[in-house]
Amino acid sequence: MHVIVQKYGGTSVADTDRIRGVAQRLVEMHREGYAMVAVISAMAGVTDNLLNLAHAVSAKPTPRELDLLLATGENAATALVAMAINALGIRAVSLTGAEAGILTDRTHAKAKIANISPRQIHNMLDEDYIVVVAGFQGQNPEGEITTLGRGGSDLTAIALAGALNADACQIFTDVDGVFTCDPRLIKDAQKLDEISYDELLEMAGAGSKVMQSRAVEFAKKFAVPFEVRSSFTGLAGTLAKEETRNMEDVVVRGVSIDRKQAKITIRGLPDQAGVAGHIFSAIASANIIVDMIVQNVSTGNTTDLSFTVHENDLEQARQLLKPIAKKIGAVELTGHDGVAKLSVVGIGMRSHSGVAAKLFECLGHGGINIQLISTSEIKIAVVVDEKDAATAARLTHQAFGLARLAPAAALS
Amino acid sequence: MHVIVQKYGGTSVADTDRIRGVAQRLVEMHREGYAMVAVISAMAGVTDNLLNLAHAVSAKPTPRELDLLLATGENAATALVAMAINALGIRAVSLTGAEAGILTDRTHAKAKIANISPRQIHNMLDEDYIVVVAGFQGQNPEGEITTLGRGGSDLTAIALAGALNADACQIFTDVDGVFTCDPRLIKDAQKLDEISYDELLEMAGAGSKVMQSRAVEFAKKFAVPFEVRSSFTGLAGTLAKEETRNMEDVVVRGVSIDRKQAKITIRGLPDQAGVAGHIFSAIASANIIVDMIVQNVSTGNTTDLSFTVHENDLEQARQLLKPIAKKIGAVELTGHDGVAKLSVVGIGMRSHSGVAAKLFECLGHGGINIQLISTSEIKIAVVVDEKDAATAARLTHQAFGLARLAPAAALS
Repeated sequence: MHVIVQKYGGTSVADTDRIRGVAQRLVEMHREGYAMVAVISAMAGVTDNLLNLAHAVSAKPTPRELDLLLATGENAATALVAMAINALGIRAVSLTGAEAGILTDRTHAKAKIANISPRQIHNMLDEDYIVVVAGFQGQNPEGEITTLGRGGSDLTAIALAGALNADACQIFTDVDGVFTCDPRLIKDAQKLDEISYDELLEMAGAGSKVMQSRAVEFAKKFAVPFEVRSSFTGLAGTLAKEETRNMEDVVVRGVSIDRKQAKITIRGLPDQAGVAGHIFSAIASANIIVDMIVQNVSTGNTTDLSFTVHENDLEQARQLLKPIAKKIGAVELTGHDGVAKLSVVGIGMRSHSGVAAKLFECLGHGGINIQLISTSEIKIAVVVDEKDAATAARLTHQAFGLARLAPAAALS
Repeated sequence: MHVIVQKYGGTSVADTDRIRGVAQRLVEMHREGYAMVAVISAMAGVTDNLLNLAHAVSAKPTPRELDLLLATGENAATALVAMAINALGIRAVSLTGAEAGILTDRTHAKAKIANISPRQIHNMLDEDYIVVVAGFQGQNPEGEITTLGRGGSDLTAIALAGALNADACQIFTDVDGVFTCDPRLIKDAQKLDEISYDELLEMAGAGSKVMQSRAVEFAKKFAVPFEVRSSFTGLAGTLAKEETRNMEDVVVRGVSIDRKQAKITIRGLPDQAGVAGHIFSAIASANIIVDMIVQNVSTGNTTDLSFTVHENDLEQARQLLKPIAKKIGAVELTGHDGVAKLSVVGIGMRSHSGVAAKLFECLGHGGINIQLISTSEIKIAVVVDEKDAATAARLTHQAFGLARLAPAAALS
């Protein structure tokens, strides 16, 4: 029995026509002999509507109740997909996360999957049912509904594919796959045929929000390959998998742009143990996500520390840090929005030198000032002025030879 | 600990303002020292929207999936009510039917409550929580979600009140209580302070759709008194309870009108055993609900049989019965829509004579022709022309002295 897990996002089940389209595709695959498991998100817009209702009755909705509320979105879409399949004459069953055997920890709103008991799914597949599972949700040890956080349906699909030892896991979405750069920004961006988990993680962390990082991390940890592909075109997408040797031949897999960033700098910070911890635990306790952190070598006995946050969090972060900066004797605290982060990602960087130099040169020739630099093993990220972001992406994309040969250019 | 179960229907939680109003009332009762359990219906309109979605993807949605789909309506409203209470600073917890311990049989779409294990509710009440329970739903022995059918939230509330041995069960709805007649039809109809289960059942079966019969039957079986009252006025409603001796002093408690009825008559039916069974099992197998059945003594060796159905079912019933009538040798099969049923209900009828005579006289004086008559121990029902229904109700209401003394009349 060849098992295929398919995940359909909110836009793929946005209305009843699309739901019937999803049912049609599942039935076709079933007729070809595959054992099909579908993971379904809430219909597009439903989750936001539910959140609006919640915030209309409570400034700070209790997480337990929010989980019960949000899970209704996936439950409804899941029931509808199963009905639509049954209407085509093929037996389907809809399962909640709990019924599908997805057990989580006790955290509400962002539960971790603790274990999967796919007995019920196996039983239904054995009886030739198409199994339709509500994404984004599970059950805690008390039997309460928990949700896995935004993007949780991807996680459900990958976790189920792992637990079922599925032959394929396909993430259907509204884009054709993972691209060398955002195709809305760079016209000749290419769709990638394959990408390593690490590269996808770095690109996800760098603004290419095809997949949530948690789902990719889970796939990496349990070695579950998955394909990101379009609900609408029928074309092959991008296969995310463990890296292979020949992947290293490509130095840079893609370029990501992360807009709406803000940069905070604390100057003249005493260069002593515990200072950075003090700062970032204050930021973390306010649930502000910090992206790049840059600290240079100290001059004398002080140092300068910079980091980026989303521009919406800038003011709150600044207010939080003011008293702390003062208390620890920093010289100056500054914050600026209107910056963007550009990242080049590729596992080939590990074995190729000169990537950073090439990036800096290309930006320099374009007259684009680099404000911050940070590197990981397979990524180089720079902060530039937001207004330079599009040009920077275009120049970088070109410099690393990522552009598709445009048909016209190929003919000339 | 005084436990009160309150049930809020769809119009009582129709928007977030009303949900906050429900939360406010629950918090006030909690502050007065009551242990509060709220049973919540889906927000008005939600269930119909979900049904429309279901019918857009499937001509005949599978009952199991329909239950998962419809239960989302109650789950969402329940979560929102609990959030709204928490926002007022009082702890509340939302429970699905399954979490509330409502166990049902395996029937989907119209499950019967098999058992209630209110341990979880007791625990939460002991910890001083307001407990908010999703109405209309339970869990079958396989752990699947089941729904109790239309009006199932009333059933949930009454069953929980029984299982918790609650001090009161209040059904909040969009009417002020049970009236002597439909107040939209009869201006001086009076709200009843109390009514026996049997009277309410006869009135529910006779078009006064304040409560579904199943919920009232359950209340009668387990002797759970309940009050029907308005969400909006704050006024006392109508208490439904076991009959007491002094209730018998009132001969007629109320008058009900059931419009949109149709009448089917089979003439010249062989007067032999099994014939009626043959006819009504055919009707029942098509899920057509038969209301009045009238058969008079036979003349010679044939008899005439009449019964009423909803006018929407007339054509189907006629088509079903044509071959059967022919086969058993009936002389004629006729069907007419455009009739209405008028019922007078009161447990006092048991010990008072002359009620039927008074009814027939009053209709006769009004020039209203009676087409069929059927009586039970506490009800007399007649079928009249639909165009006479309003006049018949007014005359009957007057004849039995049910009208409220209008303030102006009382002063004069």
